Amino acid sequence: MTQTTQGGPYPQTPATPDVINFGLGQPSPSLLPMAEVAAAATEQLVEAGPLLLQYGRGPGYEAFLEALAGFLTEGYGHAVRPDELAVTGGTSMALALVSQLLGGAGDRVLCGDPTYFLAHGIFATHRLAIEGVPVDDEGLDVDALEAKLAEGPVAFVYCIPTFQNPRGVCLSDARAARLIDLAERHDFIVVADEPYNLLHFGARPTCLMAHDHGRGRVLSLGSFSKILGPGLRLGWVHCAPPLRQRFLSHGAIRSGGCLNPLVARIVHGPMADGTLTRHVAGLREVLGRRAQRLSAALDGAGLPHHRPEGGYFTWVDLGEGADTTALLERAKDELGVGYCPGQRCAVDADLRRYLRLAFAFYDEAELARGVERLARVAELSPG
Amino acid sequence: MTQTTQGGPYPQTPATPDVINFGLGQPSPSLLPMAEVAAAATEQLVEAGPLLLQYGRGPGYEAFLEALAGFLTEGYGHAVRPDELAVTGGTSMALALVSQLLGGAGDRVLCGDPTYFLAHGIFATHRLAIEGVPVDDEGLDVDALEAKLAEGPVAFVYCIPTFQNPRGVCLSDARAARLIDLAERHDFIVVADEPYNLLHFGARPTCLMAHDHGRGRVLSLGSFSKILGPGLRLGWVHCAPPLRQRFLSHGAIRSGGCLNPLVARIVHGPMADGTLTRHVAGLREVLGRRAQRLSAALDGAGLPHHRPEGGYFTWVDLGEGADTTALLERAKDELGVGYCPGQRCAVDADLRRYLRLAFAFYDEAELARGVERLARVAELSPG
Repeated sequence: MTQTTQGGPYPQTPATPDVINFGLGQPSPSLLPMAEVAAAATEQLVEAGPLLLQYGRGPGYEAFLEALAGFLTEGYGHAVRPDELAVTGGTSMALALVSQLLGGAGDRVLCGDPTYFLAHGIFATHRLAIEGVPVDDEGLDVDALEAKLAEGPVAFVYCIPTFQNPRGVCLSDARAARLIDLAERHDFIVVADEPYNLLHFGARPTCLMAHDHGRGRVLSLGSFSKILGPGLRLGWVHCAPPLRQRFLSHGAIRSGGCLNPLVARIVHGPMADGTLTRHVAGLREVLGRRAQRLSAALDGAGLPHHRPEGGYFTWVDLGEGADTTALLERAKDELGVGYCPGQRCAVDADLRRYLRLAFAFYDEAELARGVERLARVAELSPG
Repeated sequence: MTQTTQGGPYPQTPATPDVINFGLGQPSPSLLPMAEVAAAATEQLVEAGPLLLQYGRGPGYEAFLEALAGFLTEGYGHAVRPDELAVTGGTSMALALVSQLLGGAGDRVLCGDPTYFLAHGIFATHRLAIEGVPVDDEGLDVDALEAKLAEGPVAFVYCIPTFQNPRGVCLSDARAARLIDLAERHDFIVVADEPYNLLHFGARPTCLMAHDHGRGRVLSLGSFSKILGPGLRLGWVHCAPPLRQRFLSHGAIRSGGCLNPLVARIVHGPMADGTLTRHVAGLREVLGRRAQRLSAALDGAGLPHHRPEGGYFTWVDLGEGADTTALLERAKDELGVGYCPGQRCAVDADLRRYLRLAFAFYDEAELARGVERLARVAELSPG
C-alpha cells in the first residue's frame, strides 16, 4: 500500500492548519455549492413519491439518464445517449465493481505510471497484479503498452486519459485511436477514469468514448466529485450498451438496484435546469486562474513543471538526485508546505525526483505563498 | 445465475398489475415515509456546511455513528459502540467489498442453504466457489458446517441469522455460540446479513454480535433498506474495532471516503429525534398483522409453512413431488399469483417443493386473496 502517509488512516481528509498542503486533491470548500444542493434536495425530494425510497432500476431512472446524457453531450461536444449511461456510487466504488467483473485474484492490470495513487489500493484489495506503463507528455505510452500486452493477457487497462492525475497531461488523439485498436486486437477493456474532462481551461479535450465508435472497448467512469462535490458519492459509467449490460450484471447491482438513486434525484435538478453547467463554467474560470498563478510562481522559482490546461494537478521536476519522499517530512514540519511525492503515484518507475501539486484546494495567494516555501524545499535537494 | 426470472433484467423492480406477486421482497409504498425523509433532508442539508460535499471520513462522521449506536443499542437490547460501526452504501455493495477483502477467485464461501437468492450473484461475480450448509428450524446447521470446514479453508461464512431470508427462522443461541467457536477454531469471519433484526413481532431476537464478545469473528451488515427505504442505499457494518479497520482498509474506502455521507446526513435527523424508532414500531405492527393474516390464510388452505415471528418472509412446503419452479409460469399467467420458487434460493439442495412468500409488499386483504390463488397452484402439483 502506497497511501499511508496522506492524512493518516483516512487519506481524503482536510488539511492541517499552517501547512499549505499541495497534496490535497479536493476542491476548496468555497467551490462546493452546498446551498444549491440543499435547495435542489428540498425541491426534488418533496416532489418525489415514495417510489424514490424503493429499489431503483439498475442503471438509474430514465429521466436522470436523459438529463445526464444532455449535460454530457453539451459538455463533451460528443453525442452521449442515455442507454450508454448508468449511475454509480462514485468512481472508487465503481472501480471495485469493475475489477470484480473484469478480473480475478492474480490477473494483471496495466496502469499508467505514474497514476492516481489511491487507485493502486483498489486493485491491490482485489489482488490484481499491477504493472505500470509509462506516461509522458502525450499520455499513456502505447508502444510500451503493446510490449506489455505481448507478455500475456490482462484483466483490463486502467488510465486517466484527460488532465491525468498526477501529471496533468492528455492522451493524444493518435494514441487514443491506437489504444482502442490494441484493445480490439488483444481483447481487453480500457477502464478510463475521467473526472476532469469538463474542467478544461482552454480547448475542450476529446473524451475517450469518442474514439470507441461503438466497439465496446471503453468503459468510462465519470464523476460529480470534481465538478460538484466528492461527498455526493455519485458518478456514472459511460460505455457502449452491451458493455453497460455487463456492468449491470454485477451481483451487487442485481441485488441492490441503482447504486445511489436518492443522490441522483438530488443532482437531477441542478443538472436539468442549467445550474450545474453554470457552476462548472465558474469552476473552469477559478481553477484556470489558480493554475495560471501557480504556473507563473513555479516559473518564477525556476521549477520545471507541466503547464496545466485543465483538471486539478501539475507535476514538478526537482531534478536528478532529488527525493521528494524523503524531503516531505521536513517540508511539512520546517517549511510548512505539503505535496504528493511522485513516488506515491508510481507503479514500477522511479519517480522520486517529481512531485504532484494540486491547485483545487487553495486560493491564488495561498498557492503563490506555497510555491515560495516549495522553492526552499527544492534548495534542500541535491537536484 | 439463479435470479433471471424475477422482474426481468432488473430483479428489484415493482410488480405487474393483476398478479399478486409474493416474490417481491420490498416494502409496500405506503410503508415508505417519503414525507419524513424529505423533511429531514431539507433540515439537515440546509444546516450542513460545504464540508458535507467534501470527502467524508471513512467510517462516516462521528455524530452519525453515535446516533446509530444509540438507535441500535435501544433496538437490539445490546450495547453497540460508535467505534464498532461504519457506514455502507447498502448491504449488496458491502457484500461486494467484503468479498474482495476476505477472499479471491476460486476461494470457498459457505452459505446457508436456502439463502437470499441475490447474494449468490454477488459471490458469483467475485468468482467465489459457493457451497451450501443446510438451514433448518433453528437456523444454520452447525454440525453440517463443521463437516464442510473439515474439507478445507474458507474465505468466509455467509448467513442471515435473524428472520432468515427465505425461511424466516432465527439461529438459536446455542448454535450461534457454536458458530463463533467454530470461527475461532477454523479462523474465519462470519458475515452476518442482518436487515430484519428490528422487525420482530414478539420477543426481541439476539443480534449475532452479542455472541462475539469482542473476538472479532462477526461482521454484521445492517441496513436501512427494510426499516426505512431500499432506495436510500444506506447501511452499516457492525463489528469489533480491529475488524472494522480491516473493512475500512478497502482501497475503495481509502480512495472515496465514507460510502454514502450525504444520505447518512439525511437519515441522521429521523434517527436522532426518535422518528425512526417510532416508524419501526409501526412497521412491526403492520408487518405483524400481515404475517398473522397470511399465516391464518395458509392454515385455512392447508398449506404447511413457517409461522413468521419477524422479518419479511415465510416458507411454504407444497409437499413431496411438487416443483414450484415449473409451476411459476402457470401460477402467474393463469392464476394471477407469483412467488419466489424455493429452488431459486437453493445453493446445493433440492428445494423444488418449497416456495418463499413475502408479506411486506401487499396489504392483508391482498395477501388473503393471494393465498386463495396459491391454494389452486398447490392443487396443480402432485405433492
